Amino acid sequence: MDFKPMSGRVLPRFSGVKTFFRLPHVGMNESYDVGILGVPFDGGVSYRPGARFAPSKVREFSSLGRGYHWSRGINVFDQLKVADIGDCPTVPISLEKSYELIEKHLSEVLALDKRVISIGGDHSITLPLLRAYHKKQGQKLNLVHFDAHLDTYPAAWGFEYHHGSFVRHAIEEGLVNGEGCIQIGIRGPLAGGDDLEFVNKHGLQVVTVDDVRDKGIKGVLASLRKLEGPTYLSFDIDCLDPVYAPGTGTPVPGGLTSYEVQKLLRGLEIKNLVGADIVEVSPPYDPSDITAITAVDVAFEILCLMASE
Amino acid sequence: MDFKPMSGRVLPRFSGVKTFFRLPHVGMNESYDVGILGVPFDGGVSYRPGARFAPSKVREFSSLGRGYHWSRGINVFDQLKVADIGDCPTVPISLEKSYELIEKHLSEVLALDKRVISIGGDHSITLPLLRAYHKKQGQKLNLVHFDAHLDTYPAAWGFEYHHGSFVRHAIEEGLVNGEGCIQIGIRGPLAGGDDLEFVNKHGLQVVTVDDVRDKGIKGVLASLRKLEGPTYLSFDIDCLDPVYAPGTGTPVPGGLTSYEVQKLLRGLEIKNLVGADIVEVSPPYDPSDITAITAVDVAFEILCLMASE
Amino acid sequence: MDFKPMSGRVLPRFSGVKTFFRLPHVGMNESYDVGILGVPFDGGVSYRPGARFAPSKVREFSSLGRGYHWSRGINVFDQLKVADIGDCPTVPISLEKSYELIEKHLSEVLALDKRVISIGGDHSITLPLLRAYHKKQGQKLNLVHFDAHLDTYPAAWGFEYHHGSFVRHAIEEGLVNGEGCIQIGIRGPLAGGDDLEFVNKHGLQVVTVDDVRDKGIKGVLASLRKLEGPTYLSFDIDCLDPVYAPGTGTPVPGGLTSYEVQKLLRGLEIKNLVGADIVEVSPPYDPSDITAITAVDVAFEILCLMASE
Amino acid sequence: MDFKPMSGRVLPRFSGVKTFFRLPHVGMNESYDVGILGVPFDGGVSYRPGARFAPSKVREFSSLGRGYHWSRGINVFDQLKVADIGDCPTVPISLEKSYELIEKHLSEVLALDKRVISIGGDHSITLPLLRAYHKKQGQKLNLVHFDAHLDTYPAAWGFEYHHGSFVRHAIEEGLVNGEGCIQIGIRGPLAGGDDLEFVNKHGLQVVTVDDVRDKGIKGVLASLRKLEGPTYLSFDIDCLDPVYAPGTGTPVPGGLTSYEVQKLLRGLEIKNLVGADIVEVSPPYDPSDITAITAVDVAFEILCLMASE
Amino acid sequence: MDFKPMSGRVLPRFSGVKTFFRLPHVGMNESYDVGILGVPFDGGVSYRPGARFAPSKVREFSSLGRGYHWSRGINVFDQLKVADIGDCPTVPISLEKSYELIEKHLSEVLALDKRVISIGGDHSITLPLLRAYHKKQGQKLNLVHFDAHLDTYPAAWGFEYHHGSFVRHAIEEGLVNGEGCIQIGIRGPLAGGDDLEFVNKHGLQVVTVDDVRDKGIKGVLASLRKLEGPTYLSFDIDCLDPVYAPGTGTPVPGGLTSYEVQKLLRGLEIKNLVGADIVEVSPPYDPSDITAITAVDVAFEILCLMASE
Amino acid sequence: MDFKPMSGRVLPRFSGVKTFFRLPHVGMNESYDVGILGVPFDGGVSYRPGARFAPSKVREFSSLGRGYHWSRGINVFDQLKVADIGDCPTVPISLEKSYELIEKHLSEVLALDKRVISIGGDHSITLPLLRAYHKKQGQKLNLVHFDAHLDTYPAAWGFEYHHGSFVRHAIEEGLVNGEGCIQIGIRGPLAGGDDLEFVNKHGLQVVTVDDVRDKGIKGVLASLRKLEGPTYLSFDIDCLDPVYAPGTGTPVPGGLTSYEVQKLLRGLEIKNLVGADIVEVSPPYDPSDITAITAVDVAFEILCLMASE
Repeated sequence: MDFKPMSGRVLPRFSGVKTFFRLPHVGMNESYDVGILGVPFDGGVSYRPGARFAPSKVREFSSLGRGYHWSRGINVFDQLKVADIGDCPTVPISLEKSYELIEKHLSEVLALDKRVISIGGDHSITLPLLRAYHKKQGQKLNLVHFDAHLDTYPAAWGFEYHHGSFVRHAIEEGLVNGEGCIQIGIRGPLAGGDDLEFVNKHGLQVVTVDDVRDKGIKGVLASLRKLEGPTYLSFDIDCLDPVYAPGTGTPVPGGLTSYEVQKLLRGLEIKNLVGADIVEVSPPYDPSDITAITAVDVAFEILCLMASE
Repeated sequence: MDFKPMSGRVLPRFSGVKTFFRLPHVGMNESYDVGILGVPFDGGVSYRPGARFAPSKVREFSSLGRGYHWSRGINVFDQLKVADIGDCPTVPISLEKSYELIEKHLSEVLALDKRVISIGGDHSITLPLLRAYHKKQGQKLNLVHFDAHLDTYPAAWGFEYHHGSFVRHAIEEGLVNGEGCIQIGIRGPLAGGDDLEFVNKHGLQVVTVDDVRDKGIKGVLASLRKLEGPTYLSFDIDCLDPVYAPGTGTPVPGGLTSYEVQKLLRGLEIKNLVGADIVEVSPPYDPSDITAITAVDVAFEILCLMASE
Repeated sequence: MDFKPMSGRVLPRFSGVKTFFRLPHVGMNESYDVGILGVPFDGGVSYRPGARFAPSKVREFSSLGRGYHWSRGINVFDQLKVADIGDCPTVPISLEKSYELIEKHLSEVLALDKRVISIGGDHSITLPLLRAYHKKQGQKLNLVHFDAHLDTYPAAWGFEYHHGSFVRHAIEEGLVNGEGCIQIGIRGPLAGGDDLEFVNKHGLQVVTVDDVRDKGIKGVLASLRKLEGPTYLSFDIDCLDPVYAPGTGTPVPGGLTSYEVQKLLRGLEIKNLVGADIVEVSPPYDPSDITAITAVDVAFEILCLMASE
Repeated sequence: MDFKPMSGRVLPRFSGVKTFFRLPHVGMNESYDVGILGVPFDGGVSYRPGARFAPSKVREFSSLGRGYHWSRGINVFDQLKVADIGDCPTVPISLEKSYELIEKHLSEVLALDKRVISIGGDHSITLPLLRAYHKKQGQKLNLVHFDAHLDTYPAAWGFEYHHGSFVRHAIEEGLVNGEGCIQIGIRGPLAGGDDLEFVNKHGLQVVTVDDVRDKGIKGVLASLRKLEGPTYLSFDIDCLDPVYAPGTGTPVPGGLTSYEVQKLLRGLEIKNLVGADIVEVSPPYDPSDITAITAVDVAFEILCLMASE
Repeated sequence: MDFKPMSGRVLPRFSGVKTFFRLPHVGMNESYDVGILGVPFDGGVSYRPGARFAPSKVREFSSLGRGYHWSRGINVFDQLKVADIGDCPTVPISLEKSYELIEKHLSEVLALDKRVISIGGDHSITLPLLRAYHKKQGQKLNLVHFDAHLDTYPAAWGFEYHHGSFVRHAIEEGLVNGEGCIQIGIRGPLAGGDDLEFVNKHGLQVVTVDDVRDKGIKGVLASLRKLEGPTYLSFDIDCLDPVYAPGTGTPVPGGLTSYEVQKLLRGLEIKNLVGADIVEVSPPYDPSDITAITAVDVAFEILCLMASE
Repeated sequence: MDFKPMSGRVLPRFSGVKTFFRLPHVGMNESYDVGILGVPFDGGVSYRPGARFAPSKVREFSSLGRGYHWSRGINVFDQLKVADIGDCPTVPISLEKSYELIEKHLSEVLALDKRVISIGGDHSITLPLLRAYHKKQGQKLNLVHFDAHLDTYPAAWGFEYHHGSFVRHAIEEGLVNGEGCIQIGIRGPLAGGDDLEFVNKHGLQVVTVDDVRDKGIKGVLASLRKLEGPTYLSFDIDCLDPVYAPGTGTPVPGGLTSYEVQKLLRGLEIKNLVGADIVEVSPPYDPSDITAITAVDVAFEILCLMASE
């Protein structure tokens, strides 16, 4: 099988059954290198739902995707065999069951020694994904985490697991190493000053928007911790300013631009990127489809990160 | 306290903190007759979420509500003391916990001998509401049920409780009497012919859109079972055609018009209407706000039903 | 000058500077029979503004207009010389000044013995229009009035003139004859039962939506008063159900369909139609442009009424 | 291969790569009975483009489709093996080339003795589709044609082939028999009275909206010509009123309701339905997705027509 | 009474009657420090109306608001007792009457020695607000004015008072001191070069977007006049670029980013901030709600300015 | 004739038949200096159509336009006599015929020694425009080209002429001089590395977004080639980031801001600007109208470039 996108100069980009980047839709056992997996679950959101429709929307707009990265000088689809491996089974009305299904499904893919980019879903899906990666790697992971929020927050309404607590659980469960965590795009306001206690206690590196603007892209890149060992990248679309990502559950003004995100992703030095996700794209709140278009661009940059190791 | 809407000729209808029908927002213990209660939960939907925002949206558009019913010749707010009693606590990420909270909260209100119109939320909220009404009444209830769907469907993804199964559970739990059930606005397509087994077995009266059109409003009204004893009315906005209710989770073409709904609600003869709900209004899918406007009209007609007993 | 629409088979309908029905845009002194006049004023609305943009939007969608009326068997633009005579000057921030400007501007057109269809604007503009027509005719006018609302309402916030009081003022000022008034499409709810006092006292014929549905179109047409003398037609787009006219200031569920409106307009027998208006089209609330499309259709039917006398 | 839709009770309806009715996406050579084929071309429209995105949008919303037809008492997917056979190649910037590609592609499918429902695309695609069917059948076809427009119009801007002329060409090319044509949903206004000359000359049966309303559904069905021989059904979504189909290129007020369309499609007696299309769905103008939802319902009814022969 | 926002971790943010920042809705006499007041009036706009709906929309989105300011290290709701004091009475159809009502209502609040943040409304409301503040202070005020426009413009259509002239009137009436005026975010194009005469004559400090970009945030902050005495802050949302504030009456490309606004508001040194307003948010033109979200953020920063004196 | 915009202080900006900048709509023979010409053709797009509606939309929003350029200190309408010269005839269903009509129509205007700013239309219209300019000038033109794309791409689907190939054809046909080409705003991803071969071979100056950000506006301006001889400016709105221009056919993240575009246009030194176009504005994808507003601003800056030579 030829894992290449259908060319838009052969079949128009609005044609055809929609798959990620117009790639073949295959079973998990096929001979691809990187599988793109939809994880359509938004049962962990606290405000606006809708991320369950993100895999479908990202598939649609990835029709506009192209493979040649100007500054890297590579065509990512020449470097990697990439495939659409469909959507993970989930249960929209049960976070617990969905956690179980997500961990199990991803584990099956990882058992085949594949790399996976997961398209969420809200940010609550990252915890079961990390559980599967951790089990596969047999060691704690590093985490490069783009977000407006720290996601180290306490239980809400008496419930531990929601879209704002995955980092806390990942560290408390020993999936991720606090010193191996870099959080980028973070900004306030917060519910309270104690929201910072967890990151301080566990030694996460927090890179705020102020840091990005004050140091510049190059300065920020230089300031990032050097990560050794397997690393996971979790990209919450709300790290971007709401104008670049209006379609999200809990938008926060004053965020990153899509250009800054491009430059940051291009400048990251990750030696062993075992997997990644893009979460919190909520199509019902995205009337101009800008959020979906941005998510496609982020997926492309992550693929290039994987191709450039 | 004067339980009257703020007049739009005194303070413009776009002014003021938004409450249902511009009524006072009060604690459950105040001396109103009918409380309007928001139940913002959409964790039971199978397709499009968003009904969690319905109480807020219905409050906004009920600013346009007025009290005098032309054909009944009454001002409902002269007949009944109506109040906004706020929103029921719910947990967006747990159907089980929300069921518990909803039943408990409504039970507290019912203990005060109030009548309540609940503004959902998706249709999964009706089951805990019915549990509270049943407990209060100490007997099985009749159910007048407007919907496109039978809501007698089996478990989905291994889960019993979702927005398409409340009628089945209500009958199986003994909350509602099958012979006391009237379902109006029902239509296909169905997943399979066996979807009709439950209604046939339990003897529910199913009034399809074809029935309404073939018999006419008067004919249909005459054909309805005469209900004795306490009756609950559950109004799923998707009984209406999608053009009258685009903002809903699972729209079905070929539905009722808002005029037909008005005539049906005006023609119902319910002697003991103990409570009601309006569910499945999903504001993110309602760009013209028509669904919310329709929901306000339905709430007004239900209030008039309560005032006219 | 040739007062014909630019043909869509010659120049595509999306081409060209937008005028009503792609007709020539001329000064008021040209040799047309019927002038279509924009009256972009919405300073009289009580809830949602935006009707100031209606002339522009109706111009845009009247590009889709065509001239041949199937059941009448005429091409209206062969019968009448119709022109776009631009917009009436108004002042968005002063109802008083706008009333003065509207009456003056229309009077100048009427002095040239033209007929005019005015495209509002909110319904408050009809009063100064009627003042000009009354002055020109030198006698009381009949009024055929399509609306959801009676527009006989009292002062609001201490102000007499607003978009819900033009009928009352027109009768009180002696512009219009109560017995010569027919109101079609009216429906509740009302603010109170006393809202009906004025129409009862002055003997207006009120045709509710119930009347239309109970009698049928033919029955309703037969029941209408025969009007002698000069007649004015004022068409508030909210006589239509909100699904046919979502873009309006104060939508009311349970209204007419566009087909019913077509049949009513086709069946009206008006011997001396001196002028007409279409009001309360509010483009900001019309995401599918259905309201504008409907308004164009109504304008076409009114032109045919004028051509068929 | 099992040609059944993925059940929404197994995998949520928002999950998975989107195919028509969640059916398998297969090559044209597979063992299905009826193939659903996207024809994404809108280069023939005179006003609003966008129908090129209809196959993608209809795929998305057909996730909500179900198979059991209440009044027929059948599950269509038990009767027929249906499949998504992808999109026909087209060239967005050349009508001529697209005509060639469409005729060729469909001919290849028909050579396999399949039936096909084509999802357009604008109405200009029907001509090359008919050319392929005619060639396959070796005789003139009957045509059941739902539309607001006659589509017998003359050349526009000097060009013969566009989305309003397919009926004229189909008759002039001998693909279709004038006496075998039934046009349903037609209404004015027209550009001129001469637009009726062609249908009069060639003896097409024109059923206007007035006819549907005056005779009722049953009366209209009884009045339809009995068609012998192979019949094609072309369904232009604009036969529906714009409120039921806002997302279309040239909307015309006063159209059919979706319920009327359902009843008409259920009542048609077509003995040899060789193929069908659904055209003029334009997603960019469909903010509530009602047009797409309606198109899915029409596709379901057409499948049932095929299953019920 | 406890003037704290309802926590989103206790009751979900989509729950409850909407008040500013989920604060208690109280009468003006309660023991709060800062009252947030809606001023729903848009009768002074020259182009797009809709700001009358801003208080309602800002209440809705301030549900997402949080209290802890990262760089200041304070929780504003621990520092100040803040309350929602409802909406000021206005008359949508009379600017004169609304001016009278606004000045009177605010004066009553100020007589209680409260600070107030007013949520407009269009910019014409600032003049009566300033009249009340000036009367209360008994001296001329300084004015920090964020805007795309100078708002020193002459009469329009013969009317002095509109949304583009409040600065001119405030200075001419002696409410504000020209040398105490700082205008930030200003940019062209202008109607003419003479639009600059007033600011030159009266010595206002005009900080254009070019100034902000050329000097940088720190440079601009350093260049601002040091203001002594009571200061008022008026924030027209159109100082932001239209992408950050599409929902406004008269958008101007090339404006500030929301990050720049945050940094400017954080860097302002105002010793005696007696009151503030946020105006020109027009929800009908804000399909992604970004403007409302931004307005909430600005309100938060202004509260922090008040808490940090 | 007085070629001045109607003042918004005399007639409100929402009033009147919409022309570019509220200028007189005149025949091509009138005594204006610069004509603004609509070219409503989108038959060359590969993905999202809709640019055919751009002239109409830009006319509407240019009502907000003003004439005084702050940093240049001129009122452009005092310097130049500008007029709306209507729309060029085109045929929506034929690129070939439209090319012929566009070249012919523009040639007629150029024969009158006018300058023209064309409002497209998709980018395929620039080739016939350049053919007319080249013929008029009798020599190769320079090209200043703002775009996200190089537009030097090969044939698509076997067709040479489409919206991504005009630069290649313009050079191959000898209309434009490769060394006289400056392309600004360009960015990836590309379909392949060979997409860069043409620009390398023909020596175009490519200024990427990275270049703009790395060198700054001043640095970039200084780096631009000095152009001698007649120069044409083609402005594809997608040079802007999608947040500033969501309404376009093929958006690409990471683009220019509207402020950067303003500064670039203000800093260009073009001695002999013979004509210009603004293309790829697609109103159906522009729910907040930001793209149209931006296009108006660009048109204003281009007029100032013409006035400042």
